[in-house]
Amino acid sequence: MVITSRKNTAIQFYKKLLTNKRFRKEENLFCLEGFRLVNEMLLSKGEAKMILASETFLAKNSAFIASNHLNQTDVLVISDALAEYISDVPTPQGVFAIAKRLDKKCMLGTIKTTGRYLVLCQLQDPGNLGTILRSADAFGMDGVFLFNCCDIYSPKVVRSAMGALFHLPFALCDDIHSFLTCCKSRHIITYAAVVCNGIPITDSAMQRGGALLIGNEGNGLDEETASLCTERITIPMRSSAESLNASVAASVCMWEMFKDE
Amino acid sequence: MVITSRKNTAIQFYKKLLTNKRFRKEENLFCLEGFRLVNEMLLSKGEAKMILASETFLAKNSAFIASNHLNQTDVLVISDALAEYISDVPTPQGVFAIAKRLDKKCMLGTIKTTGRYLVLCQLQDPGNLGTILRSADAFGMDGVFLFNCCDIYSPKVVRSAMGALFHLPFALCDDIHSFLTCCKSRHIITYAAVVCNGIPITDSAMQRGGALLIGNEGNGLDEETASLCTERITIPMRSSAESLNASVAASVCMWEMFKDE
Repeated sequence: MVITSRKNTAIQFYKKLLTNKRFRKEENLFCLEGFRLVNEMLLSKGEAKMILASETFLAKNSAFIASNHLNQTDVLVISDALAEYISDVPTPQGVFAIAKRLDKKCMLGTIKTTGRYLVLCQLQDPGNLGTILRSADAFGMDGVFLFNCCDIYSPKVVRSAMGALFHLPFALCDDIHSFLTCCKSRHIITYAAVVCNGIPITDSAMQRGGALLIGNEGNGLDEETASLCTERITIPMRSSAESLNASVAASVCMWEMFKDE
Repeated sequence: MVITSRKNTAIQFYKKLLTNKRFRKEENLFCLEGFRLVNEMLLSKGEAKMILASETFLAKNSAFIASNHLNQTDVLVISDALAEYISDVPTPQGVFAIAKRLDKKCMLGTIKTTGRYLVLCQLQDPGNLGTILRSADAFGMDGVFLFNCCDIYSPKVVRSAMGALFHLPFALCDDIHSFLTCCKSRHIITYAAVVCNGIPITDSAMQRGGALLIGNEGNGLDEETASLCTERITIPMRSSAESLNASVAASVCMWEMFKDE
């Protein structure tokens, strides 16, 4: 049976999850859209609560159900018009999923001095956050801690992270000061990325491991947080340039953590 | 006199330039918005055809006119409602300019073997293009050549480039093959950035200078273009990661061009 009504419970549930951050949190779920992301979720043994696919998608991707070991009944078939309605992109592929959230709350107890961790403080732009997670995954960071960032489960973050959420261990946290205290007691070096007057990243030997702190797009890290870190690091720039995009800065710093391996 | 009508010629001209790529080209002009960009344009001796400022902006920034050596008559005063109307951002600062386009057509004849150049082919996302230009400016690239990219003068590119357009020499070009032939005859090394199977960027000695080619976000460089370059380079990644965001990939490659200086 093909769902055609916007009032269908599943459609309303998807749409509410897509647009309402608090609801995503309450339900411990988030939305995925597109072949690649839904596939990554299924491959990484993510827990799907629901999969929705349009008639056109299923006609074009006849192997989708079998190749993912799904049953016919696992997939809700929706009309193409409804796929347009619930889509968050201009040209929807017609496949969607609702999956269980992936953050692991317990990671702080397991970090190691030689590991490479990313700590994001008050990142506000979903595109930046997604791009940074994609880089962290590509370079092989051991984990990401997010402090008061925009919602990692918002559609734009999920989309621009390109599957990184399924590979990268991450945790949503509240108290950066107690996190830094914990790093100190566990001898984990913390690097505060600052726009100027830090140690040039090429001189800081970040390859020894530790936690890289990246601050808000407009304001950077607050002074108190930076002062609690082991060292301040800076990406050398031409004098007249003011700064780099936050996702570029974070990526270049992460890249340096993996040099000379 | 304060302009209040949407039908005012200057307002209509600004709005048309903002939204119409062909018109920007015909008029050889583009739009700027925000204190920082307008300021950068004036500081860099860009040619302003028109400056518009809202009543609230002028009340709050009384030094703006004097500090930029402007006359009262150089600035068109517009109502706050009109500033909202012509703005391209959610929270307008209330200052706008129309400036002469900045591309220099003649750069190709002046490139040097030890210079560092960026060559962008079919970049389609304005945010990516702007971010890449911002990085190129920050790291100190000697020039940028754009082949069939999205319009560098679109509002989103101008905004995300954060003033880079005023510092960075760049040229809009058509024929990548004749460009590569020209590089070859001038002994300029060309590096084709490819997702896999290139020389790892850490092994390629890009510090010797040359031209770095970056391709389209989805498809990368086309095979023919890559095959005409001196070498193919790749950013090493974890096996399961598919790729980096185009602006991150371009930035990390540019960063490597400046290592060990």
